[in-house]
Amino acid sequence: MIIVMKMGASQEEIENMVKRVESLGFRAHLSRGEERTIIGVIGDERPVDKDSLARMQGVERVVPILRPFKLASRDFQAEDTVFKLNGHSIGGKKIIVMAGPCAVESREQIIETAHLVKEAGAHLLRGGAFKPRTSPYSFQGLGEEGLQYLAEARQATGLAVVTEVMAPEQVPLVAQFADVLQIGTRNMQNYALLHAVGESGMPVLLKRGLMSTIEELLMSAEYILSHGNRRVILCERGIRTFETYTRNTLDINAVPVLKELTHLPVVVDPSHATGKWHLVNAVSRAAIAAGADGLIIEVHPNPELAVSDGAQSLRPARFAELMTELRPVAHAVGRTL
Amino acid sequence: MIIVMKMGASQEEIENMVKRVESLGFRAHLSRGEERTIIGVIGDERPVDKDSLARMQGVERVVPILRPFKLASRDFQAEDTVFKLNGHSIGGKKIIVMAGPCAVESREQIIETAHLVKEAGAHLLRGGAFKPRTSPYSFQGLGEEGLQYLAEARQATGLAVVTEVMAPEQVPLVAQFADVLQIGTRNMQNYALLHAVGESGMPVLLKRGLMSTIEELLMSAEYILSHGNRRVILCERGIRTFETYTRNTLDINAVPVLKELTHLPVVVDPSHATGKWHLVNAVSRAAIAAGADGLIIEVHPNPELAVSDGAQSLRPARFAELMTELRPVAHAVGRTL
Amino acid sequence: MIIVMKMGASQEEIENMVKRVESLGFRAHLSRGEERTIIGVIGDERPVDKDSLARMQGVERVVPILRPFKLASRDFQAEDTVFKLNGHSIGGKKIIVMAGPCAVESREQIIETAHLVKEAGAHLLRGGAFKPRTSPYSFQGLGEEGLQYLAEARQATGLAVVTEVMAPEQVPLVAQFADVLQIGTRNMQNYALLHAVGESGMPVLLKRGLMSTIEELLMSAEYILSHGNRRVILCERGIRTFETYTRNTLDINAVPVLKELTHLPVVVDPSHATGKWHLVNAVSRAAIAAGADGLIIEVHPNPELAVSDGAQSLRPARFAELMTELRPVAHAVGRTL
Amino acid sequence: MIIVMKMGASQEEIENMVKRVESLGFRAHLSRGEERTIIGVIGDERPVDKDSLARMQGVERVVPILRPFKLASRDFQAEDTVFKLNGHSIGGKKIIVMAGPCAVESREQIIETAHLVKEAGAHLLRGGAFKPRTSPYSFQGLGEEGLQYLAEARQATGLAVVTEVMAPEQVPLVAQFADVLQIGTRNMQNYALLHAVGESGMPVLLKRGLMSTIEELLMSAEYILSHGNRRVILCERGIRTFETYTRNTLDINAVPVLKELTHLPVVVDPSHATGKWHLVNAVSRAAIAAGADGLIIEVHPNPELAVSDGAQSLRPARFAELMTELRPVAHAVGRTL
Repeated sequence: MIIVMKMGASQEEIENMVKRVESLGFRAHLSRGEERTIIGVIGDERPVDKDSLARMQGVERVVPILRPFKLASRDFQAEDTVFKLNGHSIGGKKIIVMAGPCAVESREQIIETAHLVKEAGAHLLRGGAFKPRTSPYSFQGLGEEGLQYLAEARQATGLAVVTEVMAPEQVPLVAQFADVLQIGTRNMQNYALLHAVGESGMPVLLKRGLMSTIEELLMSAEYILSHGNRRVILCERGIRTFETYTRNTLDINAVPVLKELTHLPVVVDPSHATGKWHLVNAVSRAAIAAGADGLIIEVHPNPELAVSDGAQSLRPARFAELMTELRPVAHAVGRTL
Repeated sequence: MIIVMKMGASQEEIENMVKRVESLGFRAHLSRGEERTIIGVIGDERPVDKDSLARMQGVERVVPILRPFKLASRDFQAEDTVFKLNGHSIGGKKIIVMAGPCAVESREQIIETAHLVKEAGAHLLRGGAFKPRTSPYSFQGLGEEGLQYLAEARQATGLAVVTEVMAPEQVPLVAQFADVLQIGTRNMQNYALLHAVGESGMPVLLKRGLMSTIEELLMSAEYILSHGNRRVILCERGIRTFETYTRNTLDINAVPVLKELTHLPVVVDPSHATGKWHLVNAVSRAAIAAGADGLIIEVHPNPELAVSDGAQSLRPARFAELMTELRPVAHAVGRTL
Repeated sequence: MIIVMKMGASQEEIENMVKRVESLGFRAHLSRGEERTIIGVIGDERPVDKDSLARMQGVERVVPILRPFKLASRDFQAEDTVFKLNGHSIGGKKIIVMAGPCAVESREQIIETAHLVKEAGAHLLRGGAFKPRTSPYSFQGLGEEGLQYLAEARQATGLAVVTEVMAPEQVPLVAQFADVLQIGTRNMQNYALLHAVGESGMPVLLKRGLMSTIEELLMSAEYILSHGNRRVILCERGIRTFETYTRNTLDINAVPVLKELTHLPVVVDPSHATGKWHLVNAVSRAAIAAGADGLIIEVHPNPELAVSDGAQSLRPARFAELMTELRPVAHAVGRTL
Repeated sequence: MIIVMKMGASQEEIENMVKRVESLGFRAHLSRGEERTIIGVIGDERPVDKDSLARMQGVERVVPILRPFKLASRDFQAEDTVFKLNGHSIGGKKIIVMAGPCAVESREQIIETAHLVKEAGAHLLRGGAFKPRTSPYSFQGLGEEGLQYLAEARQATGLAVVTEVMAPEQVPLVAQFADVLQIGTRNMQNYALLHAVGESGMPVLLKRGLMSTIEELLMSAEYILSHGNRRVILCERGIRTFETYTRNTLDINAVPVLKELTHLPVVVDPSHATGKWHLVNAVSRAAIAAGADGLIIEVHPNPELAVSDGAQSLRPARFAELMTELRPVAHAVGRTL
């Protein structure tokens, strides 16, 4: 951490700051510039509140130097995190594809979709039983009934299941039925929930908040990792920007950035990132080409009758075409699918 | 809702859409333009998923016409919601000021601060016992112990208490100690939590998400209102933008917009909206001048030793000056303080 | 400037960087932390390209310490810039109000509006003769004819005139007719134009780009100041954010921030910042309360027939009411109007 | 265009609006909903100012239906615009790569770089002679001298040259030396400049403003097209968002969106979109996979000594590797390189 003192900060203010820094157990390193004095703080700055230092007399600003995440960083673990899920390696050379409807709507719908996405080559089945909806008047999901249908679909197809959990008290129930617990974009900083999934020991798919920086995503992963749960998959799903033509803006830069900063697997959700089914193919290819370890894609047998996200869902036949399109792209970047 | 068909949409596509619209219980109203046909959908469109209609063959886009919130709207209730809290009217002519530290740090700290802000004229005491922190390595709040200190501070000063609740299962506990339950910015779309505070019947301070639209804020209020809980206070606390000089960007426009769209009281949090104590006075004056019904301000006896948010906390003496500064501004816009 | 070396940077990389820093005429100040070495660069860093240093082997990142603007800063000139314009002091105790239509549409329209806004208490007349329009099919302004009508309106009312200049070669022409040259939001970083208005010696109203930071605004002011032209008025006019209910988001924080960082006068444009006439009053009051030195407001005798910006233009009678509303707010913050 | 009347709009207000619509030469189509009346406006709405209609009594809002661009749209021209430049087809099956330094720094630097990028397979040489810089204290480019060096580099290598023009009066000069005129991101809405390059008849590389929507980019292209100049290349170069880890956020969605909406060729600038050389490869691959027609990449023989953009420039050897990496990706999506 670097403390930049104001132009004209008094000797006393500088000395007080040095004392404060030392009282926190750090060494202070003074550097007098032409216009300003700066104080280098030597030691692990992560647990310190920068704000209170910024508030000392004579301070202009405080500049953090170390990234605030540790367990999630490549500094902590240089090699990629790879783990097995239902026979598939997540985070390895093979691209993993999760596919299925936004919401579980009925037994028939989810089992039919599961068969179709499996045939097309998907590795996991997605589908929401608990649905976070902007409006209290929208369909909120089938709840436990939906979880049971997911379990039936798993049994019928052998596909592992990823599904969302929305509250700490739902974790034990969802964990009975799911193979991967999904934390939705609006809950990325729901710390009580991060704590609960951390404690569960289950694999977690952590979606980036639509308002969250890459660093904040890694800090939320850090919450889960710090509970001893190492099986965290990060998901870039588009961020909110001023552009309104698409539902969100896929931050494709985040893919190579995350692969540099962290050892955790990174998947991309082209459905939410665009909000339009006819953009999903192009953006899926881009994600693979940029180095993503997987995709999570909304597929619905009848998008025009879907209770949610119809506009961004692929029909099964189109999904099969997409899988065919993706294979040469995966090979072009040294991956398999 | 208006459905815009693509240029060159076929007669069959148009007819299919009309049938679909009618099958949902609406009347369809066709209008053939020079380049495109549009279909007006007549009826209460709120519960319908626009996405699935957008997915029908031949559709270019679907334009919602009605605002999606109802109970929160001025259409539903024209007159302001005003309710009593500990003898003060929230949402009336008088400006309500909530003040106190970011976090409860000790019995002494919170009781001392409570006395000081009360002397300066504050109406409620704020202070967090459960703290949502970006980092798992930061101070997470004193929890129940903090709640007890808040209760002592209330007893000592007579100030009502507003404090954050972070998870549904905490609601009963926090409700024992608090007068107003605060939903923090990162939980604005934590629907399980909105459900729980809606059921509690307690007054709720709902903070706008840092990247949530005004409409989304009102939809989250709608969740609480739809559980029969009418005592909701909205809080504009700054949104995330590209500007990095300040911690957030106060959306001052949101104050008159909310006063037009909704009957609910609106308060402003200048501390989080700026992140810098020396900007709090100017922005507090602006909030009152724009028509806010109240302010929530961070005050700490020793900001340079605060465990969180020290950079944006006022010292008690400075807070007293602010109250003095605000009175003529309140009078200039026909309010009292 | 601080150079943060990567964890594990070699001794040779550190030495190379020190040599490079010294070759640029600076002193280097080494500080070895627990995880990383940092190098303080002592001297005036402003002219140095940080990018090329960031590119040296072993560097993690480069952190600038000094703000990049100089002539615009309070460090350079502590007291406020105040200058006379047509008998009014800009930047002094008195709030200055500029009012008039978005575009000059006819001789009658501009002269009528000039009389009405003068009666209501405005100090300058605004009106565009050259109009930057998103669409090539929209009205592009009356050009020189519009400038002549503005001059007639000035003669008829005695109001000084502020009008936009869009290209370097227009500067001499516009300077013949205008008292203040306006640089529009889309031209804030049109450096050829900044150069030309800097050379002109005329007072300049510099509007903040709709996605420009406060620092970038000050850098654009620096361009004008560095040509010896000291009469620059900054204008906060709303920035682009994700919020779509309003046309832009007024960055009210920017008012006190600018007053701290720079000695230049700061005015606010509530018309563009909101895009809706019914929000203009609330936001104008907020701007004055926050410390703005003036306002620029769109007023049109018949907004529903205006060729541009009708939705955000006040009728003259409403503008007169606004002036009446603003006086007590100005007094409440120790200003006059 | 759809006009949504307020709930409770009077019969007179509705009739006045119908008259106004008809007076503008349109047909009005009334549709009375349960809560609101809406009026469909039939005819080419593009030249009409929506704002003035929005200002009529009783109106809630005005919803445009037609996209405001015409010549740039697929509706106007369904097949791709393809044109020859120095023997290469722009917009065809072959991916076009433009490479070179941010700024022309010396004769040696640009000629050396030209040879190296040509050997690696680039099709055009980029390099700035007039440089838009945020700071007046930064290097502003070599000007005409730089243009002459570019011409020498062209002669030496046979590569066509793309270089930026910053002001209308520079167009004739730059047109003497360049093969493609570049409009920089800060000038995307500099309408005087768009007019001048439109008149020039030269091919134009139009960079998206860092604050501009896709629709605004197409409107700026429309300015150029409406002067009869059809050879416009669009460039997605990253937009400004809240994410600060990268210099900008590449809007990869914009690639397929533009390919759907317009017939114009689309290139991507991964250097500015990321700001970091080590992210350029991943993002370049993604751009090709998403369907871009070309890339523009910063390459410098000594990035650590570059006067600008060193941090995002590739060394020539790394650029050659990138070209090798890109070929299989191009083939995977049915293109050549």
